[in-house]
Amino acid sequence: MAGASGYAGGEILRLLCGHPRLASGELEIGSLTAGGNAGSRLGEHHRHLFPLADRVLEETTPEVLAGHDVVFLGLPHGQSAVIADALPPSTLVVDCGADFRLEDPAEWTAYYGGDHAGTWPYGMPELPGNRDRIAGAGRIAVPGCYPTVSILTLLPALAAGLVEPAVTIVAMSGTSGAGRAPKVNLLASEVIGSVRAYGVGGVHRHTPEITQALSNAASLPVGVSFTPVLVPTSRGILATCTARTSASIDEIRAVYEKAYADEPFVHLLPEGEFPETGSVIGTNMVAIGLSVDERSGTMVAVGAVDNLTKGTGGAAVQSMNLALGWGEGEGLPTVGVAP
Amino acid sequence: MAGASGYAGGEILRLLCGHPRLASGELEIGSLTAGGNAGSRLGEHHRHLFPLADRVLEETTPEVLAGHDVVFLGLPHGQSAVIADALPPSTLVVDCGADFRLEDPAEWTAYYGGDHAGTWPYGMPELPGNRDRIAGAGRIAVPGCYPTVSILTLLPALAAGLVEPAVTIVAMSGTSGAGRAPKVNLLASEVIGSVRAYGVGGVHRHTPEITQALSNAASLPVGVSFTPVLVPTSRGILATCTARTSASIDEIRAVYEKAYADEPFVHLLPEGEFPETGSVIGTNMVAIGLSVDERSGTMVAVGAVDNLTKGTGGAAVQSMNLALGWGEGEGLPTVGVAP
Amino acid sequence: MAGASGYAGGEILRLLCGHPRLASGELEIGSLTAGGNAGSRLGEHHRHLFPLADRVLEETTPEVLAGHDVVFLGLPHGQSAVIADALPPSTLVVDCGADFRLEDPAEWTAYYGGDHAGTWPYGMPELPGNRDRIAGAGRIAVPGCYPTVSILTLLPALAAGLVEPAVTIVAMSGTSGAGRAPKVNLLASEVIGSVRAYGVGGVHRHTPEITQALSNAASLPVGVSFTPVLVPTSRGILATCTARTSASIDEIRAVYEKAYADEPFVHLLPEGEFPETGSVIGTNMVAIGLSVDERSGTMVAVGAVDNLTKGTGGAAVQSMNLALGWGEGEGLPTVGVAP
Amino acid sequence: MAGASGYAGGEILRLLCGHPRLASGELEIGSLTAGGNAGSRLGEHHRHLFPLADRVLEETTPEVLAGHDVVFLGLPHGQSAVIADALPPSTLVVDCGADFRLEDPAEWTAYYGGDHAGTWPYGMPELPGNRDRIAGAGRIAVPGCYPTVSILTLLPALAAGLVEPAVTIVAMSGTSGAGRAPKVNLLASEVIGSVRAYGVGGVHRHTPEITQALSNAASLPVGVSFTPVLVPTSRGILATCTARTSASIDEIRAVYEKAYADEPFVHLLPEGEFPETGSVIGTNMVAIGLSVDERSGTMVAVGAVDNLTKGTGGAAVQSMNLALGWGEGEGLPTVGVAP
Repeated sequence: MAGASGYAGGEILRLLCGHPRLASGELEIGSLTAGGNAGSRLGEHHRHLFPLADRVLEETTPEVLAGHDVVFLGLPHGQSAVIADALPPSTLVVDCGADFRLEDPAEWTAYYGGDHAGTWPYGMPELPGNRDRIAGAGRIAVPGCYPTVSILTLLPALAAGLVEPAVTIVAMSGTSGAGRAPKVNLLASEVIGSVRAYGVGGVHRHTPEITQALSNAASLPVGVSFTPVLVPTSRGILATCTARTSASIDEIRAVYEKAYADEPFVHLLPEGEFPETGSVIGTNMVAIGLSVDERSGTMVAVGAVDNLTKGTGGAAVQSMNLALGWGEGEGLPTVGVAP
Repeated sequence: MAGASGYAGGEILRLLCGHPRLASGELEIGSLTAGGNAGSRLGEHHRHLFPLADRVLEETTPEVLAGHDVVFLGLPHGQSAVIADALPPSTLVVDCGADFRLEDPAEWTAYYGGDHAGTWPYGMPELPGNRDRIAGAGRIAVPGCYPTVSILTLLPALAAGLVEPAVTIVAMSGTSGAGRAPKVNLLASEVIGSVRAYGVGGVHRHTPEITQALSNAASLPVGVSFTPVLVPTSRGILATCTARTSASIDEIRAVYEKAYADEPFVHLLPEGEFPETGSVIGTNMVAIGLSVDERSGTMVAVGAVDNLTKGTGGAAVQSMNLALGWGEGEGLPTVGVAP
Repeated sequence: MAGASGYAGGEILRLLCGHPRLASGELEIGSLTAGGNAGSRLGEHHRHLFPLADRVLEETTPEVLAGHDVVFLGLPHGQSAVIADALPPSTLVVDCGADFRLEDPAEWTAYYGGDHAGTWPYGMPELPGNRDRIAGAGRIAVPGCYPTVSILTLLPALAAGLVEPAVTIVAMSGTSGAGRAPKVNLLASEVIGSVRAYGVGGVHRHTPEITQALSNAASLPVGVSFTPVLVPTSRGILATCTARTSASIDEIRAVYEKAYADEPFVHLLPEGEFPETGSVIGTNMVAIGLSVDERSGTMVAVGAVDNLTKGTGGAAVQSMNLALGWGEGEGLPTVGVAP
Repeated sequence: MAGASGYAGGEILRLLCGHPRLASGELEIGSLTAGGNAGSRLGEHHRHLFPLADRVLEETTPEVLAGHDVVFLGLPHGQSAVIADALPPSTLVVDCGADFRLEDPAEWTAYYGGDHAGTWPYGMPELPGNRDRIAGAGRIAVPGCYPTVSILTLLPALAAGLVEPAVTIVAMSGTSGAGRAPKVNLLASEVIGSVRAYGVGGVHRHTPEITQALSNAASLPVGVSFTPVLVPTSRGILATCTARTSASIDEIRAVYEKAYADEPFVHLLPEGEFPETGSVIGTNMVAIGLSVDERSGTMVAVGAVDNLTKGTGGAAVQSMNLALGWGEGEGLPTVGVAP
């Protein structure tokens, strides 16, 4: 696990601690590495991981990471390729960064700058055909947190052509999605008691990732207006997704029910109920509520996800399970910690 | 002041305590009335109003309210008409409820049920022509909190025809907007750590009020998709307002700058900056940020307001100032309490 | 499970959903009952319990609860005795209420009013001799949340006579400890952004329970000054416990290390580290940090607990495990959900 | 104003914006200076100070600060002396840092390291004799936030000898008291949902300041056990202060009532009521509740303060008012922003 002192690293370790293959001895937690925190106890950084409190962090180098069957990367954007290239093809590498998510190099350059590192199988098994791709992969790119909930909340309606291919997504996120590097605008004093829009006007880096997946699903270009909002919670994203429609709520529900009938981590709420982030905290679930507003001619679909679990670490473990031939849902909670 | 133990009542009293006409003796805080809380000390309910802590709440009856020059009503929807009808036309009545906001009785019946009580001048001076209407009024309907920020954030673009008349509003509110009556879904345990969509699909009662004002401004029917979201703060609403546009950011900024050049309580942020609720808490300000997303062909305008101040009590005092011929901004804070 | 729609009920169900004996078929979740919520879906109340969302709540009656091997009671104080008396001795009854915790009927009457129902084995296995008592019990009284953390944080020092038998406990709790019945003072608007002392001056009902356990441990009367404080979190209690001492930090650490060496759910932090509630959320752990302030001649011991897990539902399941002869820690998380 | 982009600086500016001498022209807000933020707009840092949004920050140098009648210093500890020494004696210097608060150089060195800069009149007018000292001063040391509430909550009981001179203070603070420099442990993700003890065991730097004032008041050495706790709010401190007593609640209330009868910023709550931080946010008030627990033989006094207002910026303005011969309470709010 590279980047073990960050939030993504902590979440993967939390899930691995509860993975049934750990108890059975088929899974071992190997080297934990970090950048500036190398040399310190894990317990100083993740005080909630009691069983691992006395593990000591090593330097993030290919040498330290070599010799593991699976390597999770939780590194700042742009740092994954160097590490991944130094690991043998037989090592399963699961990257929580953005480096290998985009298909179009021009989009990478426009949103992240620099050269595109490549494209790996996208670790979202719920996309058509993706489950097989992940099962056979040696390299997996874990989806971003905003894309996870946005894509899964909109996918069936767009794939079925029930809404216009121009969607408005306003998504509220807790602060853990912004990582653990200290910045003034992420201080508790700045965040508590306040709600703040940022990355307004299509400039957030998750915009092309959402656009790519939705356009692929709809088999035509989808216009995406994406506005992220920072709210005073630590975990959780709620995405409100609006698109014009002439379909009825029954037609729309029918395609969602069919699309997600066999998905273990997508929960469609009964008609008239809408999700909240509080119910999915700590779980790998995406909860979705659907409505049609006939006056304005719009579908409003609302999705909730824990950005660190299904939005990062849970998807990473889910992808690992598939790639190793284990049960897809092993070690992945479906019951939240609430209230 | 009828309904003095509720949040709207507390906010009006907070502002009146700081009103310069109180110090000069031209303003006196008369009877404070309540429903179930009548007979108790105000300090039991509004522990922050130190100077009024020992005032005792009376029953909300026309008799108790008679004899005042100005009466503020902070009552549950549907209860204002009976009180107002019993007060003489010479008494300025400022109603913080919804009863007299809508022009169309059918909309009232559809969203609130029962018969429409009537329509009073709408206490939003920033609407074209409204400042004069309020100045001459003896009865004023204070706008709803979501409508206040939604309307002011979208008005110039719609009035100038720069965006399509179909808007998507997603607005996040703290819990004080839902009032002080105890309900399970408003308990701190349910709200803290969670973000929840509610009233999805155009069913929130503020939808027709927003539609009415925007359609009047645009002189044509405006389609409004309105989704409210509950966030874990006490005060503040952030509204993200999206509409298709082919205008440039410069064209759009120009109409906003012109529209709000002389408005004391609307603050247009510099290009690239977007508001947060934390900066307007305790103020009568609306802060607005503008962007155009050329990829998706949308304008995204974001507005922030304190739902209890400019969204309720501040608008009430602003309207009173106008109706009494006092300075419009007297007693209305333009500096927030942050962080 | 009686009282399944409350917070204690929800927490027990959360833990049972993850209990390994559920997967193996040795444990089944039987009838779920409620008071006013009977007849509704569990998913309306506990939206985080996805696998149980469609279970329907029944009435809390002895008839409905009969026929189960284990019955958990999560009822308002004073209601447990009637239900328990109607269940056969062969049914294991685990009561999360206060009814059977106190040994002294006079204390019961002084703090709760009415007649004392009796005294059951106290479900805190970490108390000397208690593990055996619980293992052989058919009726178990789950400790209160404040007592759990207060007692375990002070016990070794008092039992060893290292501090004076006069302790000052100031404990900050989230709101879920106050239950789910709607009250104005528990509304999010009142709680967010505020810290409030309540039950000051020894009047909180957990005071005699703490006093009883500490006096038993010290074999002499212990004076307890207990001040609870409400903080804006949902879960978690942090207890700061101060007592005069002439012992050194090394002496004190030694008795704690010995006392808790084999306790699976007590984590003693390294010297100089102090707990936070955030690290124990969702776990059955108590985290304890110790210090001696030589200037003021005091020991300050700080403990953290999740009031719903180790403070209620976790202790209930831990006691059940013991009473059924299962592994004490089965189904009880030792890894928290953080940040 | 030196250090204008920090929280103390922002608060002083907030209060000056509402000061009546600003409106009358007797007060002008001169140069605003900063360290690393020099050259930027104030609106980038304090988005709530709308009227000052376009002011540009200058470098913190004696040259820039020269020529003002009053200079407020909001600098990191240890930096005030250099600036103050370069300003003429005729300039009123009000220091919000710790540099000039302690009387005993040994205590300074023990808690802060390095050499003691000196001792200035302590800007707490409520201490006996201090109002006159401040009125005649050209240099004023603003008290720390924890000391402000701790001292005022305990002072009358200790001065009257009604409690033993050994006190236990547990004080919960929001994060703004820790300043605006970005640190991992102050990130919203770490703070939200958590309560954390820190500086346990008498090591917090405010301990000698509290001890000094209480010992002076009692005319004998007072033992102080001080434990600070970080809670998920931005503003506000609640201090629970416990001391052994054989006095009755009536005796204790009598001395508090007498001590604070004429204090404009101390509010003694009625018997049985206790303060919360939410009611003092934005005000210069200290709210105090008193109790005696006869079982444990203790007085528990609870005080609440806004750490940025009465705890820093409000005390600075209050001291300035006194030193300039203006009304002590000018520009200082006594009504909070709640809920």
